[in-house]
Amino acid sequence: MPKPKAVAIKMRIRIYAGDRMLGPGKMELLGQIDTTGSLAESAKRMGMSYTRAWQLMRDLNGDSDRPMVEMSRGGASGRTAKATPLGKKVLALYQQMESKSASAAKADGRKLARLLK
Amino acid sequence: MPKPKAVAIKMRIRIYAGDRMLGPGKMELLGQIDTTGSLAESAKRMGMSYTRAWQLMRDLNGDSDRPMVEMSRGGASGRTAKATPLGKKVLALYQQMESKSASAAKADGRKLARLLK
Repeated sequence: MPKPKAVAIKMRIRIYAGDRMLGPGKMELLGQIDTTGSLAESAKRMGMSYTRAWQLMRDLNGDSDRPMVEMSRGGASGRTAKATPLGKKVLALYQQMESKSASAAKADGRKLARLLK
Repeated sequence: MPKPKAVAIKMRIRIYAGDRMLGPGKMELLGQIDTTGSLAESAKRMGMSYTRAWQLMRDLNGDSDRPMVEMSRGGASGRTAKATPLGKKVLALYQQMESKSASAAKADGRKLARLLK
Protein backbone atom coordinates (compact mmCIF):
# COMPACT_ATOMS: atom_id res chain seq x y z
CA MET A 1 0.00 0.00 0.00
CA PRO A 2 1.45 3.38 -0.95
CA LYS A 3 2.24 5.61 1.97
CA PRO A 4 0.09 8.72 2.31
CA LYS A 5 1.64 11.82 0.78
CA ALA A 6 0.77 15.50 0.71
CA VAL A 7 -1.17 16.33 -2.44
CA ALA A 8 -1.80 19.83 -3.75
CA ILE A 9 -3.29 21.04 -7.01
CA LYS A 10 -2.34 24.51 -8.21
CA MET A 11 -4.10 26.37 -10.99
CA ARG A 12 -2.71 29.35 -12.83
CA ILE A 13 -5.44 31.00 -14.84
CA ARG A 14 -4.89 33.53 -17.60
CA ILE A 15 -7.68 35.42 -19.31
CA TYR A 16 -6.96 36.83 -22.75
CA ALA A 17 -9.43 39.43 -23.99
CA GLY A 18 -8.54 41.27 -27.17
CA ASP A 19 -4.94 42.35 -26.62
CA ARG A 20 -5.30 42.35 -22.83
CA MET A 21 -4.19 39.60 -20.46
CA LEU A 22 -5.05 39.11 -16.81
CA GLY A 23 -3.14 36.46 -14.91
CA PRO A 24 -1.87 35.39 -11.50
CA GLY A 25 0.63 38.27 -11.07
CA LYS A 26 -1.81 41.13 -11.54
CA MET A 27 -4.51 39.32 -9.60
CA GLU A 28 -2.24 38.62 -6.65
CA LEU A 29 -1.26 42.29 -6.59
CA LEU A 30 -4.88 43.39 -6.71
CA GLY A 31 -5.71 40.99 -3.87
CA GLN A 32 -2.80 42.24 -1.77
CA ILE A 33 -3.80 45.87 -2.35
CA ASP A 34 -7.37 45.04 -1.37
CA THR A 35 -6.07 43.39 1.82
CA THR A 36 -3.32 45.81 2.86
CA GLY A 37 -4.42 49.16 1.41
CA SER A 38 -0.79 49.82 0.49
CA LEU A 39 1.20 49.34 -2.69
CA ALA A 40 4.49 49.29 -0.77
CA GLU A 41 3.26 46.59 1.59
CA SER A 42 1.79 44.59 -1.32
CA ALA A 43 5.14 44.75 -3.16
CA LYS A 44 6.93 43.59 -0.02
CA ARG A 45 4.59 40.63 0.52
CA MET A 46 5.03 39.61 -3.09
CA GLY A 47 8.83 39.88 -2.90
CA MET A 48 8.79 42.48 -5.66
CA SER A 49 10.31 45.96 -5.93
CA TYR A 50 8.04 48.96 -5.46
CA THR A 51 8.83 50.05 -9.02
CA ARG A 52 7.79 46.68 -10.41
CA ALA A 53 4.58 46.70 -8.37
CA TRP A 54 3.84 50.23 -9.60
CA GLN A 55 4.31 49.14 -13.23
CA LEU A 56 2.11 46.08 -12.70
CA MET A 57 -0.59 48.27 -11.14
CA ARG A 58 -0.37 50.68 -14.07
CA ASP A 59 -0.72 47.77 -16.52
CA LEU A 60 -3.70 46.50 -14.56
CA ASN A 61 -5.31 49.93 -14.66
CA GLY A 62 -4.81 49.97 -18.41
CA ASP A 63 -6.71 46.69 -18.83
CA SER A 64 -10.12 48.30 -18.45
CA ASP A 65 -11.74 51.63 -19.31
CA ARG A 66 -11.80 52.53 -15.62
CA PRO A 67 -9.08 51.97 -12.98
CA MET A 68 -9.06 48.90 -10.74
CA VAL A 69 -6.73 50.51 -8.21
CA GLU A 70 -6.74 54.08 -6.92
CA MET A 71 -3.82 55.75 -5.17
CA SER A 72 -4.31 58.66 -2.79
CA ARG A 73 -2.31 60.66 -0.29
CA GLY A 74 -2.61 59.66 3.35
CA GLY A 75 -1.79 56.65 5.48
CA ALA A 76 1.31 56.00 7.54
CA SER A 77 3.57 55.65 4.50
CA GLY A 78 2.16 58.77 2.88
CA ARG A 79 0.08 56.99 0.23
CA THR A 80 -2.73 54.52 0.25
CA ALA A 81 -3.81 52.21 -2.52
CA LYS A 82 -7.24 50.73 -2.77
CA ALA A 83 -9.19 48.47 -5.05
CA THR A 84 -12.07 50.29 -6.76
CA PRO A 85 -15.51 48.65 -7.04
CA LEU A 86 -14.47 47.48 -10.52
CA GLY A 87 -11.23 46.08 -9.07
CA LYS A 88 -13.14 44.22 -6.38
CA LYS A 89 -15.52 42.78 -8.95
CA VAL A 90 -12.69 41.58 -11.18
CA LEU A 91 -10.89 40.08 -8.20
CA ALA A 92 -14.03 38.29 -7.00
CA LEU A 93 -14.67 36.82 -10.46
CA TYR A 94 -11.05 35.66 -10.74
CA GLN A 95 -11.11 34.06 -7.29
CA GLN A 96 -14.38 32.34 -8.17
CA MET A 97 -12.72 30.97 -11.32
CA GLU A 98 -9.88 29.64 -9.19
CA SER A 99 -12.11 27.94 -6.67
CA LYS A 100 -14.57 26.51 -9.20
CA SER A 101 -11.79 25.14 -11.40
CA ALA A 102 -9.94 23.66 -8.43
CA SER A 103 -13.13 21.91 -7.26
CA ALA A 104 -13.83 20.60 -10.76
CA ALA A 105 -10.33 19.14 -11.10
CA LYS A 106 -9.94 17.80 -7.57
CA ALA A 107 -11.19 14.22 -7.97
CA ASP A 108 -9.09 13.51 -11.08
CA GLY A 109 -6.11 15.24 -9.46
CA ARG A 110 -6.29 12.91 -6.49
CA LYS A 111 -6.54 9.88 -8.76
CA LEU A 112 -3.53 11.14 -10.70
CA ALA A 113 -1.54 11.81 -7.53
CA ARG A 114 -2.09 8.22 -6.42
CA LEU A 115 -0.26 7.05 -9.57
CA LEU A 116 2.83 9.07 -8.64
CA LYS A 117 5.64 8.01 -6.37
CA MET B 1 -21.64 48.92 -26.50
CA PRO B 2 -18.21 47.28 -26.23
CA LYS B 3 -16.97 45.82 -29.48
CA PRO B 4 -16.71 42.03 -29.59
CA LYS B 5 -13.25 40.76 -28.76
CA ALA B 6 -11.56 37.38 -28.82
CA VAL B 7 -11.65 35.80 -25.36
CA ALA B 8 -9.56 32.84 -24.28
CA ILE B 9 -9.06 31.26 -20.89
CA LYS B 10 -5.87 29.29 -20.30
CA MET B 11 -5.27 27.00 -17.35
CA ARG B 12 -1.91 25.76 -16.23
CA ILE B 13 -2.35 22.95 -13.75
CA ARG B 14 0.37 21.61 -11.47
CA ILE B 15 -0.07 18.56 -9.27
CA TYR B 16 2.22 18.24 -6.26
CA ALA B 17 2.37 14.80 -4.68
CA GLY B 18 5.00 14.25 -2.00
CA ASP B 19 8.18 15.64 -3.56
CA ARG B 20 6.97 15.07 -7.11
CA MET B 21 5.42 17.65 -9.43
CA LEU B 22 3.56 17.13 -12.67
CA GLY B 23 2.81 20.20 -14.74
CA PRO B 24 2.17 21.50 -18.26
CA GLY B 25 5.72 20.83 -19.59
CA LYS B 26 5.86 17.13 -18.76
CA MET B 27 2.24 16.64 -19.76
CA GLU B 28 2.70 18.33 -23.12
CA LEU B 29 5.72 16.11 -23.77
CA LEU B 30 3.79 12.99 -22.84
CA GLY B 31 0.93 14.05 -25.12
CA GLN B 32 3.31 14.72 -28.03
CA ILE B 33 5.02 11.36 -27.54
CA ASP B 34 1.64 9.64 -27.49
CA THR B 35 0.73 11.44 -30.74
CA THR B 36 4.00 11.23 -32.66
CA GLY B 37 5.69 8.09 -31.32
CA SER B 38 9.00 9.95 -31.42
CA LEU B 39 10.97 11.87 -28.82
CA ALA B 40 12.86 13.81 -31.53
CA GLU B 41 9.64 14.89 -33.22
CA SER B 42 8.04 15.78 -29.85
CA ALA B 43 11.06 17.93 -28.96
CA LYS B 44 10.84 19.67 -32.35
CA ARG B 45 7.12 20.42 -31.97
CA MET B 46 7.72 21.83 -28.51
CA GLY B 47 10.63 23.99 -29.71
CA MET B 48 12.94 22.22 -27.28
CA SER B 49 16.32 20.54 -27.73
CA TYR B 50 16.43 16.75 -27.89
CA THR B 51 18.61 16.75 -24.77
CA ARG B 52 16.09 18.82 -22.84
CA ALA B 53 13.23 16.57 -23.98
CA TRP B 54 15.22 13.52 -22.93
CA GLN B 55 15.80 15.00 -19.46
CA LEU B 56 12.15 15.90 -19.12
CA MET B 57 11.16 12.37 -20.12
CA ARG B 58 13.58 10.94 -17.59
CA ASP B 59 12.11 13.18 -14.87
CA LEU B 60 8.64 12.09 -15.88
CA ASN B 61 9.64 8.44 -15.70
CA GLY B 62 10.98 9.08 -12.21
CA ASP B 63 7.64 10.45 -11.01
CA SER B 64 6.06 7.03 -10.67
CA ASP B 65 7.20 3.52 -9.72
CA ARG B 66 6.78 2.44 -13.33
CA PRO B 67 7.75 4.32 -16.52
CA MET B 68 5.24 6.50 -18.39
CA VAL B 69 7.32 6.49 -21.60
CA GLU B 70 9.24 3.62 -23.16
CA MET B 71 11.99 4.01 -25.75
CA SER B 72 12.86 1.26 -28.20
CA ARG B 73 14.94 0.79 -31.33
CA GLY B 74 13.15 1.03 -34.65
CA GLY B 75 11.30 3.67 -36.62
CA ALA B 76 12.64 5.97 -39.34
CA SER B 77 14.83 7.94 -36.95
CA GLY B 78 16.20 4.80 -35.33
CA ARG B 79 14.22 5.04 -32.07
CA THR B 80 10.61 5.14 -31.13
CA ALA B 81 9.07 6.49 -27.96
CA LYS B 82 5.68 5.48 -26.71
CA ALA B 83 3.42 6.20 -23.80
CA THR B 84 2.91 3.14 -21.59
CA PRO B 85 -0.58 2.26 -20.29
CA LEU B 86 0.35 4.15 -17.10
CA GLY B 87 1.46 7.15 -19.19
CA LYS B 88 -1.80 7.10 -21.12
CA LYS B 89 -3.80 6.94 -17.90
CA VAL B 90 -1.91 9.89 -16.36
CA LEU B 91 -2.32 11.89 -19.57
CA ALA B 92 -6.04 11.18 -19.75
CA LEU B 93 -6.55 12.24 -16.12
CA TYR B 94 -4.57 15.44 -16.66
CA GLN B 95 -6.49 16.31 -19.82
CA GLN B 96 -9.75 15.65 -17.99
CA MET B 97 -8.61 18.05 -15.26
CA GLU B 98 -7.90 20.68 -17.90
CA SER B 99 -11.24 20.34 -19.62
CA LYS B 100 -13.30 20.13 -16.41
CA SER B 101 -11.58 23.14 -14.87
CA ALA B 102 -11.91 25.17 -18.07
CA SER B 103 -15.64 24.40 -18.21
CA ALA B 104 -16.09 25.29 -14.55
CA ALA B 105 -14.36 28.66 -14.97
CA LYS B 106 -15.83 29.61 -18.35
CA ALA B 107 -18.88 31.61 -17.31
CA ASP B 108 -17.01 33.77 -14.80
CA GLY B 109 -14.15 34.17 -17.28
CA ARG B 110 -16.52 35.57 -19.87
CA LYS B 111 -18.02 37.97 -17.32
CA LEU B 112 -14.54 39.07 -16.35
CA ALA B 113 -13.47 39.52 -19.96
CA ARG B 114 -16.42 41.84 -20.56
CA LEU B 115 -15.01 44.18 -17.88
CA LEU B 116 -11.73 44.49 -19.75
CA LYS B 117 -10.94 46.88 -22.57
